[in-house]
Amino acid sequence: MSVYLRDIPLPEARNILKQALTDAGLWKVLAEEEIILDENAFGRVLTAPVWAKISSPNYHASAMDGFAIRAEDISEAMPTQPVLLKIGSNVQYIDTGDPLPDWANTVVPIENVEAVNLEGKPVEDIRHPMYIRLRAALPPWSHVRPMGEDIVATQLVLPAGQILRPFDLGAIAASGHSTVRVSRLPHVAIIPTGSELIPIGQDVRRGDIIEYNSIVLAAQVEKWGGLATRFPITPDDYSLICQRVQKAADENDLVLLNAGSSAGSEDFSARIVSDLGELLVHGIAVRPGHPVILGMIRRTSGGMTPIIGVPGYPVSAALTGEIFVEPLLAFWRGCTAVEPVEISAILARKVTSPAGDDDYLRVVAGRVGDRLLAAPLPRGAGVITSLVRADGITIIPRGVQGLEAGDMIKVRLYRSPEELDRTIFAIGSHDMTLDLLAQYLSGRDRRLVSANVGSLGGLVALRRGEAHLAGSHLLDPQSGEYNVSYIRQYLPGIPVRLITWVGREQGLLVPKGNPKKIVSLEDLSRKGVSFINRQRGAGTRVLLDYHLQRLGISTADIRGYDQEEYTHLAIAAAVSSGRADCGLGIAAAAKALDLDFIYLFQERYDLVIPCQYLEGNLLSPLFEVMNDPGFRQAVAAQAGYDVSMMGQVIMEC
Amino acid sequence: MSVYLRDIPLPEARNILKQALTDAGLWKVLAEEEIILDENAFGRVLTAPVWAKISSPNYHASAMDGFAIRAEDISEAMPTQPVLLKIGSNVQYIDTGDPLPDWANTVVPIENVEAVNLEGKPVEDIRHPMYIRLRAALPPWSHVRPMGEDIVATQLVLPAGQILRPFDLGAIAASGHSTVRVSRLPHVAIIPTGSELIPIGQDVRRGDIIEYNSIVLAAQVEKWGGLATRFPITPDDYSLICQRVQKAADENDLVLLNAGSSAGSEDFSARIVSDLGELLVHGIAVRPGHPVILGMIRRTSGGMTPIIGVPGYPVSAALTGEIFVEPLLAFWRGCTAVEPVEISAILARKVTSPAGDDDYLRVVAGRVGDRLLAAPLPRGAGVITSLVRADGITIIPRGVQGLEAGDMIKVRLYRSPEELDRTIFAIGSHDMTLDLLAQYLSGRDRRLVSANVGSLGGLVALRRGEAHLAGSHLLDPQSGEYNVSYIRQYLPGIPVRLITWVGREQGLLVPKGNPKKIVSLEDLSRKGVSFINRQRGAGTRVLLDYHLQRLGISTADIRGYDQEEYTHLAIAAAVSSGRADCGLGIAAAAKALDLDFIYLFQERYDLVIPCQYLEGNLLSPLFEVMNDPGFRQAVAAQAGYDVSMMGQVIMEC
Repeated sequence: MSVYLRDIPLPEARNILKQALTDAGLWKVLAEEEIILDENAFGRVLTAPVWAKISSPNYHASAMDGFAIRAEDISEAMPTQPVLLKIGSNVQYIDTGDPLPDWANTVVPIENVEAVNLEGKPVEDIRHPMYIRLRAALPPWSHVRPMGEDIVATQLVLPAGQILRPFDLGAIAASGHSTVRVSRLPHVAIIPTGSELIPIGQDVRRGDIIEYNSIVLAAQVEKWGGLATRFPITPDDYSLICQRVQKAADENDLVLLNAGSSAGSEDFSARIVSDLGELLVHGIAVRPGHPVILGMIRRTSGGMTPIIGVPGYPVSAALTGEIFVEPLLAFWRGCTAVEPVEISAILARKVTSPAGDDDYLRVVAGRVGDRLLAAPLPRGAGVITSLVRADGITIIPRGVQGLEAGDMIKVRLYRSPEELDRTIFAIGSHDMTLDLLAQYLSGRDRRLVSANVGSLGGLVALRRGEAHLAGSHLLDPQSGEYNVSYIRQYLPGIPVRLITWVGREQGLLVPKGNPKKIVSLEDLSRKGVSFINRQRGAGTRVLLDYHLQRLGISTADIRGYDQEEYTHLAIAAAVSSGRADCGLGIAAAAKALDLDFIYLFQERYDLVIPCQYLEGNLLSPLFEVMNDPGFRQAVAAQAGYDVSMMGQVIMEC
Repeated sequence: MSVYLRDIPLPEARNILKQALTDAGLWKVLAEEEIILDENAFGRVLTAPVWAKISSPNYHASAMDGFAIRAEDISEAMPTQPVLLKIGSNVQYIDTGDPLPDWANTVVPIENVEAVNLEGKPVEDIRHPMYIRLRAALPPWSHVRPMGEDIVATQLVLPAGQILRPFDLGAIAASGHSTVRVSRLPHVAIIPTGSELIPIGQDVRRGDIIEYNSIVLAAQVEKWGGLATRFPITPDDYSLICQRVQKAADENDLVLLNAGSSAGSEDFSARIVSDLGELLVHGIAVRPGHPVILGMIRRTSGGMTPIIGVPGYPVSAALTGEIFVEPLLAFWRGCTAVEPVEISAILARKVTSPAGDDDYLRVVAGRVGDRLLAAPLPRGAGVITSLVRADGITIIPRGVQGLEAGDMIKVRLYRSPEELDRTIFAIGSHDMTLDLLAQYLSGRDRRLVSANVGSLGGLVALRRGEAHLAGSHLLDPQSGEYNVSYIRQYLPGIPVRLITWVGREQGLLVPKGNPKKIVSLEDLSRKGVSFINRQRGAGTRVLLDYHLQRLGISTADIRGYDQEEYTHLAIAAAVSSGRADCGLGIAAAAKALDLDFIYLFQERYDLVIPCQYLEGNLLSPLFEVMNDPGFRQAVAAQAGYDVSMMGQVIMEC
């Protein structure tokens, strides 16, 4: 087995699979079945057109509660010259939906009738008078639903390929059917493999990986109209995997073999596919997702079952589902896959991309002013939260090496476009209370999308018109003031409102018990102490550099000064895991991961909001939340936060 | 009980229901339950935020297959000055996902390594060499996924109210959870009532109505995340309905009582709601749907259950579901209802609307040139096919009495907007082969939407730029030629291609056996013969009027001349049901409903296509279908069609 996979382009891989399915007689809609027409038919796919067996209504029906009459009997009726009709063989009360008597050809609605007795006096029970008096003529067939008004027998009710919606079921029933012919549900087996995998619910030890790809893949299969069977976790044991793949292929329409598809020392998948059938493709030029396997397994009883070797990284696995499984299931069900809504958006940040691959980039999106903006999310194939946070996907095609900020891109949305109009786009410094703010805003019909690029990055984004607000805590060493001078420098001519969000404590995050006895910034250059830094442009980095310079500490003397992370929590995680001995960050991050916190400074964290976004009501829920005592309390309850100045205006428009 | 319902505005009705639910302690998310995290959690709604219990990865993990080393050991490596490392305590092979050893701080990918033996010669098994040779330095933490790269313990993974998607399940699992807290599923009972109702599958006699609203409502409930229980059909029997409503209210969160909500003689619903609890609202100013009932039923065990009296007309019933049931279920589940995509479109035809109601108008929609157009569908509350055919709904609000052709409207789409771009919009004359054409086009990624407004109406629509093509069969009495002179008159300055679609037989449709012995148009004025006519502007009407004039027959002498229908099938249905003795139409319509056909004329039915739409590839599948022998055969197999001239160009651009 080679270490290097030969990645082939996606369309070529699709064609190879299609050809193999065709050769195996599997490139067609799955067998048809006839099912009872009830709510369980919802979502199934018609394999044949539905033609009406009967008309609906099946007879001329009254469209109103009223009296069935013959139009010719009241042709002379006028307001001043009423016609009196006797209830009987040619005048009869009729309910909505009742059949029109043969002798009748029109219906007078009850509200247009004077119901009277023998003496011509109004009666109480207007449905059972002796006479009715009418003061207007009516054309024939008034207030009548003629037979076939809705459906005429023999007419096409629904075409083959229709995914049945609730009211489709009604139309099929109305046209005289009690069963419906639909495609069988595709059966999909999912086999998670890997000796490092443990099921959810077990204690996680170093080296263990929680197995959840099979849950994601199974839920995808259900979403796409298939029936998923999850196999138990199978360790990296060639013959055991063979045995389960064979069983899965014998009993299912499709097998998803998760992981082992790369070229690592225990990656058996390609060999197993070869040995049990035919290996068609190993490696596809798609990022993330490279080591995809496509193949066919020989069934014990004859025939073939397709198998997809799904990469182990969760983002790769989920995207492999979208790229291969979704369209195949749709084809087998006899319908076209539901197309995602696609919008055009402006890319907010430059991205690079490998020229050889179709690159599936996850983005967040929102409308800022009159522009739709998309900002890229972390690229790692292991970062499933990038899918969770994603508003959509943009595909950077093979042959394109990257995109510039400002480029127009197509985004396949995971959300409705309406949600983008209710999105508050925050780009700037990271603070943990933004999660809390997002929670409170979602209760007020707003979505907060925040991209953490540091305080300076936030101001730059505001200048480019790419965010509604930026969190910023930039200390001006000259004045000791926060943010104001930076706004003057970076946002000239752009009127903004500067509002205090929180006061917060910055200090050194160290492991519990502070084993290295770190007490001040001077300790960072001590031998045997390693540090983890924030990225350039972050307010915390500005703060660090200012104090290092003040103290005359050379950054070259700090081990790990070049190791950068983008959030306070990431700093805490690095310290917690032993990757570094300490880092500069906020108290709440230390608290979250149960670290010790060496208090150094109190600082102010503000929100910068261009005045143009204060018009309209997009941001008003933000100000409501700021004034919500419950919210302030929730923020104050977190370690190191001071809410006494929240909402105070520092600069006004 | 009053005959007249007092219709109250929709927002008022919503508030009354909300207040009653609040008073009953039911205006809150349904009880929380903790479920196993597996694929069945897909679609459920979080009742509490998910905070990460552990980090993911939970340790520093290798991001590649390669060798774990200490970065400082290769800091001097250069292409010309390689560093040789011995496999052992500080150099070790590592698979993707394996934990980084404590002593290591970086990973060299296997493809950047020269694996050699004691003599410095390359080895076969590159994962188990004695030495590795490296020709480049690497910064620490290269090709390592640091602990917490995806998720840091304590971090917010998902907010409360999230509707769980497949990859959300993965993120929850990755953050250390094996169960998830979600809202209980709402239980909804559906009780169909009415002595005229019969279940699907039974023979339909005159006066019978097939009960299918309960199927539609149940499927809607399932679609919106509830659990539906359908009760058996209950005849109009006060005490039996009471008994079932009570049982339903005792066992469910919501009761839908179908029909009986009007003021007809057997409409018990309002009385039953009064008697078993509280009648809140009877009649809402929404069209279609007026006689909606809102109320609360007292549970046997204490407490209340809301009840909705759903009108009997199928369109009213389905829309009542969308208006009341969908948002209530979403609220109870703790999420916001999925919002339909809304587009702006130009209304293609004038509509009137009752000023007092919010009017839910079903429309078909498509893109013609650079404009999105919407054409209204039949308004009847009994026409469920209007929902089946609908591409979306537009709401004409209370206080607006109608809309003009050309007005800009908002349409809530039932389809993805992408589908509208693949839509061929045909407005004009009706022909039964258009259904067949629609079938063939759907296999070629096109949707045919056709509105039947007659041949002249089609030409007018083309002039206004509101259709891609029009079917037309307008005979010019002077020349005996079809369509050409009409195009010159109605489409001056608009270049079109005129193509023959089919030749077809027009004649009189009469009941089997021709009881009235009708043989020619002269018989229409005979005493005792009733006629059903096509609408003005229809080619068939033009044909009729031409021949009547030629024969000197006065239209005043024809009984039923003023009774108009819009399609050939509707004419056939009117004759079949005995509403009229005969009508003029095509042979295929007679065949469909098993009528006799008195052949009168052969005529030509053409397609008129403005040349501008021939560019681009929207219409190319239409021409493919025209040349498809299978399609021609299918058309020719229908009664009275001649396909010998199909595709012949009469006028060119």
